[in-house]
Amino acid sequence: MTTWGGRFTGKMDEAFERFNRSFPIDQRLILEDIEGSLAYAEALESIAVLTPPELKQIVNGLNQLKDRVKKAPSFLEESNDEDVHTFVETQLVEIIGKTGLKLHTGRSRNDQIALDTRLFLKRALIEVQGQVKQLMIELVNLASNNSELVIPGFTHLRKAQPILFAHYLLAYFEMFFRDHQRFQDCFRRTNCLPLGAGALAGSGFPINREALRKKLGFAQITHNSLDAVSDRDYLVDFVSASSLTLVHLSRLAEDFIIYSAPEFGWIELSDCVTTGSSLMPQKKNPDSLELIRGKSARVIGNLTQLLIILKGLPLTYNKDLQEDKEILFDTLDTLLDCLNITQVILRTLQVNPSAAHRALEEGFLNATDLADYLVRKGLPFREAHELVGRIVLNCENQRIKLPDLPLDDYQHFSVLFEEDIFQILSVQSSIEAHSVHGGTSPSRVAKALSDAKEILTKLSSSDHP
Amino acid sequence: MTTWGGRFTGKMDEAFERFNRSFPIDQRLILEDIEGSLAYAEALESIAVLTPPELKQIVNGLNQLKDRVKKAPSFLEESNDEDVHTFVETQLVEIIGKTGLKLHTGRSRNDQIALDTRLFLKRALIEVQGQVKQLMIELVNLASNNSELVIPGFTHLRKAQPILFAHYLLAYFEMFFRDHQRFQDCFRRTNCLPLGAGALAGSGFPINREALRKKLGFAQITHNSLDAVSDRDYLVDFVSASSLTLVHLSRLAEDFIIYSAPEFGWIELSDCVTTGSSLMPQKKNPDSLELIRGKSARVIGNLTQLLIILKGLPLTYNKDLQEDKEILFDTLDTLLDCLNITQVILRTLQVNPSAAHRALEEGFLNATDLADYLVRKGLPFREAHELVGRIVLNCENQRIKLPDLPLDDYQHFSVLFEEDIFQILSVQSSIEAHSVHGGTSPSRVAKALSDAKEILTKLSSSDHP
Amino acid sequence: MTTWGGRFTGKMDEAFERFNRSFPIDQRLILEDIEGSLAYAEALESIAVLTPPELKQIVNGLNQLKDRVKKAPSFLEESNDEDVHTFVETQLVEIIGKTGLKLHTGRSRNDQIALDTRLFLKRALIEVQGQVKQLMIELVNLASNNSELVIPGFTHLRKAQPILFAHYLLAYFEMFFRDHQRFQDCFRRTNCLPLGAGALAGSGFPINREALRKKLGFAQITHNSLDAVSDRDYLVDFVSASSLTLVHLSRLAEDFIIYSAPEFGWIELSDCVTTGSSLMPQKKNPDSLELIRGKSARVIGNLTQLLIILKGLPLTYNKDLQEDKEILFDTLDTLLDCLNITQVILRTLQVNPSAAHRALEEGFLNATDLADYLVRKGLPFREAHELVGRIVLNCENQRIKLPDLPLDDYQHFSVLFEEDIFQILSVQSSIEAHSVHGGTSPSRVAKALSDAKEILTKLSSSDHP
Amino acid sequence: MTTWGGRFTGKMDEAFERFNRSFPIDQRLILEDIEGSLAYAEALESIAVLTPPELKQIVNGLNQLKDRVKKAPSFLEESNDEDVHTFVETQLVEIIGKTGLKLHTGRSRNDQIALDTRLFLKRALIEVQGQVKQLMIELVNLASNNSELVIPGFTHLRKAQPILFAHYLLAYFEMFFRDHQRFQDCFRRTNCLPLGAGALAGSGFPINREALRKKLGFAQITHNSLDAVSDRDYLVDFVSASSLTLVHLSRLAEDFIIYSAPEFGWIELSDCVTTGSSLMPQKKNPDSLELIRGKSARVIGNLTQLLIILKGLPLTYNKDLQEDKEILFDTLDTLLDCLNITQVILRTLQVNPSAAHRALEEGFLNATDLADYLVRKGLPFREAHELVGRIVLNCENQRIKLPDLPLDDYQHFSVLFEEDIFQILSVQSSIEAHSVHGGTSPSRVAKALSDAKEILTKLSSSDHP
Repeated sequence: MTTWGGRFTGKMDEAFERFNRSFPIDQRLILEDIEGSLAYAEALESIAVLTPPELKQIVNGLNQLKDRVKKAPSFLEESNDEDVHTFVETQLVEIIGKTGLKLHTGRSRNDQIALDTRLFLKRALIEVQGQVKQLMIELVNLASNNSELVIPGFTHLRKAQPILFAHYLLAYFEMFFRDHQRFQDCFRRTNCLPLGAGALAGSGFPINREALRKKLGFAQITHNSLDAVSDRDYLVDFVSASSLTLVHLSRLAEDFIIYSAPEFGWIELSDCVTTGSSLMPQKKNPDSLELIRGKSARVIGNLTQLLIILKGLPLTYNKDLQEDKEILFDTLDTLLDCLNITQVILRTLQVNPSAAHRALEEGFLNATDLADYLVRKGLPFREAHELVGRIVLNCENQRIKLPDLPLDDYQHFSVLFEEDIFQILSVQSSIEAHSVHGGTSPSRVAKALSDAKEILTKLSSSDHP
Repeated sequence: MTTWGGRFTGKMDEAFERFNRSFPIDQRLILEDIEGSLAYAEALESIAVLTPPELKQIVNGLNQLKDRVKKAPSFLEESNDEDVHTFVETQLVEIIGKTGLKLHTGRSRNDQIALDTRLFLKRALIEVQGQVKQLMIELVNLASNNSELVIPGFTHLRKAQPILFAHYLLAYFEMFFRDHQRFQDCFRRTNCLPLGAGALAGSGFPINREALRKKLGFAQITHNSLDAVSDRDYLVDFVSASSLTLVHLSRLAEDFIIYSAPEFGWIELSDCVTTGSSLMPQKKNPDSLELIRGKSARVIGNLTQLLIILKGLPLTYNKDLQEDKEILFDTLDTLLDCLNITQVILRTLQVNPSAAHRALEEGFLNATDLADYLVRKGLPFREAHELVGRIVLNCENQRIKLPDLPLDDYQHFSVLFEEDIFQILSVQSSIEAHSVHGGTSPSRVAKALSDAKEILTKLSSSDHP
Repeated sequence: MTTWGGRFTGKMDEAFERFNRSFPIDQRLILEDIEGSLAYAEALESIAVLTPPELKQIVNGLNQLKDRVKKAPSFLEESNDEDVHTFVETQLVEIIGKTGLKLHTGRSRNDQIALDTRLFLKRALIEVQGQVKQLMIELVNLASNNSELVIPGFTHLRKAQPILFAHYLLAYFEMFFRDHQRFQDCFRRTNCLPLGAGALAGSGFPINREALRKKLGFAQITHNSLDAVSDRDYLVDFVSASSLTLVHLSRLAEDFIIYSAPEFGWIELSDCVTTGSSLMPQKKNPDSLELIRGKSARVIGNLTQLLIILKGLPLTYNKDLQEDKEILFDTLDTLLDCLNITQVILRTLQVNPSAAHRALEEGFLNATDLADYLVRKGLPFREAHELVGRIVLNCENQRIKLPDLPLDDYQHFSVLFEEDIFQILSVQSSIEAHSVHGGTSPSRVAKALSDAKEILTKLSSSDHP
Repeated sequence: MTTWGGRFTGKMDEAFERFNRSFPIDQRLILEDIEGSLAYAEALESIAVLTPPELKQIVNGLNQLKDRVKKAPSFLEESNDEDVHTFVETQLVEIIGKTGLKLHTGRSRNDQIALDTRLFLKRALIEVQGQVKQLMIELVNLASNNSELVIPGFTHLRKAQPILFAHYLLAYFEMFFRDHQRFQDCFRRTNCLPLGAGALAGSGFPINREALRKKLGFAQITHNSLDAVSDRDYLVDFVSASSLTLVHLSRLAEDFIIYSAPEFGWIELSDCVTTGSSLMPQKKNPDSLELIRGKSARVIGNLTQLLIILKGLPLTYNKDLQEDKEILFDTLDTLLDCLNITQVILRTLQVNPSAAHRALEEGFLNATDLADYLVRKGLPFREAHELVGRIVLNCENQRIKLPDLPLDDYQHFSVLFEEDIFQILSVQSSIEAHSVHGGTSPSRVAKALSDAKEILTKLSSSDHP
């Protein structure tokens, strides 16, 4: 079934009909389509395109349809309608008769799909933000429960300096907090009513768009009808923000794959998020993390696809845009899944302090502290750096650690060394030395943790008031 | 159901179980999985891991399963097995009992999925090549049926020189012929048996891989087990070749959207591949072409996704690779759809010679012929070009065409002009002048058309002998 | 020259040294690097790592270097230093001697490059926003100068309904206004001081980061040192926003390539932004628009590249991130060029009202108005749509336009038709009918134009106060 | 300077002139452009467009130019010509005078740039294949020099089974061998002469394209002029093949970053391909590997960009295509650099057998061997797998290894266990058990190594004969 046909003589090719149909995909927007139609019917009544009884009929019909969809959606599968708009109109006419044929007055599928998508995305964004926040809570919980654990910090996947595990987790808190805000920006931009734009030139009937806006809960209305029907920026914003969130998730996944490998081993994944091998009985594989890493590629692929579709597309609506729905749905589902699974991973994670402890002993993580010591004794940093580099090389050749080198040997390198160097070589001394704002010292991290909790409290009350 | 579990104490998280399950996707490989298992059972029997009666039992069981899948595949939906391999093993055990538990000896899902995918892709490629060839046939048919139609040739979407419509169509013949060959290369690379690689180190049992190769119809066997289970190059080859084919289809789509616009108008799309507007009664929109153009983005997105998954992935198998199946299936389906719809479009296309004729009159398409005339009279080309540029500007200002300019005026520009110039300014003269190999002169195009037909004949007999 | 080496015995491979060197690229950040170093020297003095005389020396040295860079930057080419940070330190030591070796105390190239990039990007964003605003001004100017021109509005590259050219231009105003705001969001996120994060764990010296923030003009400081050195979200935000801006530019380019083609022809590009052919003397090609369209691909490619680099990257800094600079610079340069050239195109564009006029006569752009007429007479829209579709088909077969069909014939289709239909079939009547907010009616567009001018006034005063 | 202008009255906008100029990029094709022009001049002479003396003049002029370019290319920087074709023509006229103005007869920059690019790419491909082969040689050398070293093989970055290091290296040999062949396919497709296609319709002069083909060393000529000037498939082939090669390099890089981390540690990178930290004196970072991994993103970004440019581009030449040159050059340079640096890394790599030895002791890598043992005793594999899983769990809880579990305990799990199990639990026994073709057993790997050497010998003689 289609909503057009008067000017056509030939019949649609069957293969093309299947190719062209979007109902298998866009039926996911059916509640939004009905909601928009309910509001639109009122708007038509208020300009006398519909009589009050006609409005009542249409409202009843749409509500019946909505109920049926909610209760037993399987009947959607039986339809061969072209798209969700056609389906709703067809069903309405079936329920209430010819009055239903008046509903599309002054409206086009072009402004209708823009409305449906924005309504859907607004709800999706609230769900996404909720999940991002939940993930932030899990990070804070894990950090709070392991607030004293020190692990090696890495650059270039080589041990660099000791850091608090809580400090490490709060780095991801920062990323996801930015993501939360980015989704908020995205919500703000989506929160704009396109209905009334008609096919492209504005509705041919003097619809009260401001009343529609209030009814449908938008903050603003679009200001240009051509833009309103061809704009998909809000989708780009969403898929782009989702890509970045998945990049963050993929980095956490990569870290955790590595840190939970027995060679590192200061975290262990729960059995509940790992799988085995069909062949090798001993395997316990971090599939959950690998899938999250892999799925980040999926959303980046979606972003690429969306930008390619839009690039060079002439104004206004073109059918290429039909592909946007699968991108939206697939991105949303993937994102929610990955956010959720990461929460489960964090919630069930075990830490292994003794592995962390062992890891901090090897690798000269205190070399910078030694150089800083020399700076405090007056040596220019660049010279201190060079000198400590040579001490490290010396120790490495002897296969000893910095605390194992006798004071005499130190003094052989520089007369600035005194008995007090051995104090600054401890892990505890090292992390306490990094006490700037944002640093890993215990007091800073404790404060950062309490700041994070405060942010979470505010997020609860402030977003989407 | 999973094929592992002995070393696990905790239960899988439910959300993770859904996230991890690939059966909803990879069940599409079930016939390939059974085929591989049938061959593998024979291989196990030939090294006495299975007794002849056990082999018979397994073969019977697998054949029963195959029949059931072919007849009533809906029972696959009821399973909650982890993946297609688990499903086949579980079903087999259900049908024949404990003997089924022997089938996975010396085999891993890692080499099994590589086998299934290669078997599937080989078949898919034959179908794709068939569709590409069919498209080439439609191009040749359309060219043959309109062998004398001259249209404007474009560069920069500005009229350049007259060309035969058949010559234009044969340009796409060349592209799709290259695509056909590229899929052939892809077939050659896919045609390599990975089974026997085990999880990564090679099977722990002395499987006769050469016998397996013959049985399963591969041209070669893989030479390194680590590579065999982590290699997805054949998928990259396929998605990459598909991207290029879709780029070609998108260029044809773009051309046809433009050429069938009433402003150009020398082709008209059949009603059967166009759609109307829900609001604007007069519209006849080239949705088929727009969708093809849009879907090219989808396959490029898939390629991007696949390369991102593979980039930086450590050896050997990692779960990220599970995402490859959706990429393969979606690319294949999209490609086949677009190849098919383009055939319908070509088959039902109408040409409009009078629109083409009118289009050739405006736009100075013969300006180069005029410059070439001067060259033949001895003027260096660069000067001829400059001079004709000025003549064109002069005509444009007078709003006349080149044949309308009096000889006197021509001679005012250059004494080289003589009465014979008016002959070379005709469309026919122009196309005949381009008689180099590959050029648009009628005789060259006739020859090219007959060469194309010969290629098509050879394609029938030579590929996949 | 490098800033490390004490623990190394082997020499760097020459090919690797070239491969590893970033100075040819990151030297573009030299002024930011010096600015950051000046502020950092003060910070070191305030915690007594430097004495006041040492600070003075360093400040003098850095200022000398800055002057030299500004006056004769060619000496940068002679250096073989590893990167811009090494270059500045080396030069400083050359100018002021050993005191320069103290500057890197408690600082790492990891927080330093984050600082330099953020300083650079903040300035770049102000320039970008200025150019976007300038482009918005050109759109408004062109719209104001052609406020009464009516052109065909398109969907699916098929004529849909008449629209004001000014309305069309304001659709792009909306897009670029959103872009301007998106760059503002990007600025806000970039405006955060990372210096003090050290290599990853926070500086080992109690640097006053709040004082640094004020000195360097940032709105905030980063809260987590690990995040501070591995975060490139602000670059993703920038390249992502740039991609979308270029998508908008590419759509304008595509429209203009088509609208300025002689077949459409209601705009004409100035000679100053077109080029000719080396072979075909008549050609006047829209190269400027084609290049903009082509360059949008470049920035989308950059976005893809950046996301791929970040995906799955373990914390914290990894050398992969070095590639971010070329992405930033190339994106910025491409974006600024395309914004600038589009302004030139708009500024020098000619309109061709008679071509627009002719274009409006063909194509049944008033068919929807006819259907709306029937709705006002009481016919349900869907029936009116169907009926007008058949009238259009009838006219098309007769090769006449809607106003040419006699009233009798209209009444043959429906008795609702009366003499007044001929009034609603005019272009003027059609555009006036679309008088909703956002619609194309002259009064709405006049108001939209004045709103746009007001937005531009506010943009001048409000951004970056 | 441009090669057109007669029909233009306005001057080019200065900013647009810079934006439009490709000479800064395409000057890299100057030798190819001259080579093509030399051949083309002969072709013109053979159809009497040039006299023999004119030909001689032109040949002399072009050769002079070639010499100057080779000796002192810096004069190219001083030109403000539009592109390399214009530059060569301008210079030729400067050297030999007006005869130079005849060279462009019947030729367009459209077929000329296609020629130049194909000539360039053919040479580039030979260089690339040479580097790929060199890399294969390094892999074989490293494998030969460490033919007995056993390391853990990984799936999911978890220890799986013991493998020979040589077997591991030969997995990459397979990948790069496929790459070598893919570049060969690419060469074959590139090896096709486009010259004579003119602007789009074929040359207007009866150029002997077959003679040109021989002269310029192509295997074939293009068969359709429209395709010849708009086809960039050979570039897609090249960038696509390069992406895959870089994906392979990135996987090797990722493996080596991990394997050379002290936590794994069975390989160590030479000082000559690592760098230090400006702050942390102890650091030795694998920057070479990280850069290679990062640069793979660059080439994938290039591929995305190229496909986006081509997608939906109308026939034939459009200026968007100008962007293809930077993609080609950047991809080539990046690829060659990464191939070269990887060779250096392999050549200077140290292995650490004791670290490998330690790594093999932990992680139950022999669990599958134990299951296979039970299979040989008659237990169905799936049950053996389950049972060994439980044994592993038991050992893990006791913190012992499989060889440490007493026979009694084994027999407690299954009566099938006998004294001989302890033999199959050794590393040597495990690798020897994987003796299928492609497996990791020492004899198979020795054979694979000798096969690899033979392939290398053949590569020397067979490619590009």
